[in-house]
Amino acid sequence: PDAEAAQAARARNGQLTKPPGALGRLEDLAIWYAGWRGTARPRIVAPQVIVFAGNHGVTARGVSAFPAEVTVQMVANFEAGGAAINQLAGEFGAKMDVIALDLDRPTADFTAGPAMSEAEVVAALAAGWAAVDPHADVLVTGEMGIGNTTSAAALAHALFGGAPEDWVGRGTGVDDAGLALKARVVAEGLAANPGAQGDALEALRCLGGRELAAMAGAIARARVARIPVILDGFICTAAAAVLAQTSAGGLDHAVAGHGSAEAGHGRLLEALGKAPLLALDMRLGEGSGAALALGVLKGAVACHSGMATFAEAGVSDG
Amino acid sequence: PDAEAAQAARARNGQLTKPPGALGRLEDLAIWYAGWRGTARPRIVAPQVIVFAGNHGVTARGVSAFPAEVTVQMVANFEAGGAAINQLAGEFGAKMDVIALDLDRPTADFTAGPAMSEAEVVAALAAGWAAVDPHADVLVTGEMGIGNTTSAAALAHALFGGAPEDWVGRGTGVDDAGLALKARVVAEGLAANPGAQGDALEALRCLGGRELAAMAGAIARARVARIPVILDGFICTAAAAVLAQTSAGGLDHAVAGHGSAEAGHGRLLEALGKAPLLALDMRLGEGSGAALALGVLKGAVACHSGMATFAEAGVSDG
Repeated sequence: PDAEAAQAARARNGQLTKPPGALGRLEDLAIWYAGWRGTARPRIVAPQVIVFAGNHGVTARGVSAFPAEVTVQMVANFEAGGAAINQLAGEFGAKMDVIALDLDRPTADFTAGPAMSEAEVVAALAAGWAAVDPHADVLVTGEMGIGNTTSAAALAHALFGGAPEDWVGRGTGVDDAGLALKARVVAEGLAANPGAQGDALEALRCLGGRELAAMAGAIARARVARIPVILDGFICTAAAAVLAQTSAGGLDHAVAGHGSAEAGHGRLLEALGKAPLLALDMRLGEGSGAALALGVLKGAVACHSGMATFAEAGVSDG
Repeated sequence: PDAEAAQAARARNGQLTKPPGALGRLEDLAIWYAGWRGTARPRIVAPQVIVFAGNHGVTARGVSAFPAEVTVQMVANFEAGGAAINQLAGEFGAKMDVIALDLDRPTADFTAGPAMSEAEVVAALAAGWAAVDPHADVLVTGEMGIGNTTSAAALAHALFGGAPEDWVGRGTGVDDAGLALKARVVAEGLAANPGAQGDALEALRCLGGRELAAMAGAIARARVARIPVILDGFICTAAAAVLAQTSAGGLDHAVAGHGSAEAGHGRLLEALGKAPLLALDMRLGEGSGAALALGVLKGAVACHSGMATFAEAGVSDG
């Protein structure tokens, strides 16, 4: 970030017509945003939402409440404007792109070996990188992929340790038996991919999916282009965590949009040191929680850049 | 609310292209909104924010970190578009009205007797009632009034008991001595107005202020016009609590927009049985927390009314 711009934004914040600190987290959020955008008085005019879709070989193990064909059906729904993320992107003025990644060629079942080859994971990272509009001023990455909470749980387990049970959740709605199966599948995935532990990019290749790799690629590109990122729920955060584990501060340009109801998300955010902006028991993915948090970020930046100072308004400053 | 519309909205919610419950609190929020608007598929197109301003005789006791003239200065700031609430109303497409209530004639110091006469409190309630646009489809009421956290604390104490210390907070920023003074002033206010306990409207007259009475009047009018209300922080909620204590279910048409950092707000929301949508450590008033929560409500309703059903989208429903 641009330390000078952040400092100028902090100084401006102290002169706005409100008691010091009265806008709470909105103030820190606006200053953080100003630092990454390199200007003390930024505006948000071009948010981008990208939804990446991928299919997962591990669905053969019966880890999801929905059949794998729902991935391609939901991509059609995104393209027709009928999903939750379409409504939220529209409400908050974001342009939305949908990138389907080789849906007819699922990743390999990671309980039998790596989910992706080197070439496959690089292609997915590159697809994410290329999908970012360099003129965007906020980025939300969302995902769709039946089976991907299992993939994200395995990835989180490889990155942060603990037990498989710490990271698996009910996803789209599995029962207790399904939850126990997911934990077993995650344990098998780590056993089948010994190289995944202690190497974040290798963990992404072995246990992730194309949409997870694409989100990581997009969030990395946003860093280079100084585009602040709002993280969505468990799957997006697991993908983003690869960047944090790869280089210190690698996610400093990202805030946690919301705390998902998916079981492992709280633990994941804690591991990353990020407090979510919203906590509304959402667990849909698609970027929906992050897109809703875009409203909060837009509100924060609008206050910061639009308010009068005490001097401008002729208000006594206490 | 319209039970049939709420039921139809609940049925629609069950058919939308998402796993059951995956939008969390957004789903309940949309169904609640649909019930009050009397249609299964509502739209939000005309939100109204009203900021009421009043002055308080109790400021003579030194309960605020800011001088009383800031009230009229901030009204000018609202009218010029320079305050936080202007930016938030603009961001979320709300029209904003500012109603200054006899600023040159503060209420009486409630530690010496009733803050308002019968005629004064009725005039303020009526001003609030009249300020609501009957064609609005959401209402946010905000306030400005140096000294009004002390007034709201006294009102909350009269309505819900406890100790003065349970309800006083730092407002715009008093120190420990100021906080102790506010508690003493609240205790004196209750002692000087024995009729205020056990009679919510009398408590509003004796301990409230014109802007608090106006918010109560506006929220009552919204009920009659079936306009759902988003409550702001401590002062707004204390004023609204008068309606809940006057008739059972009198605030069913209102949701808590945010949990304020002002000390007594959590206790007040608990007494009213309302869980806030946002918790961002805001404590500005003006309607700012509620206006930010308007983004959440708009997102919830946009999803509910804009999403495709499984049948429409041709998606397998698990």
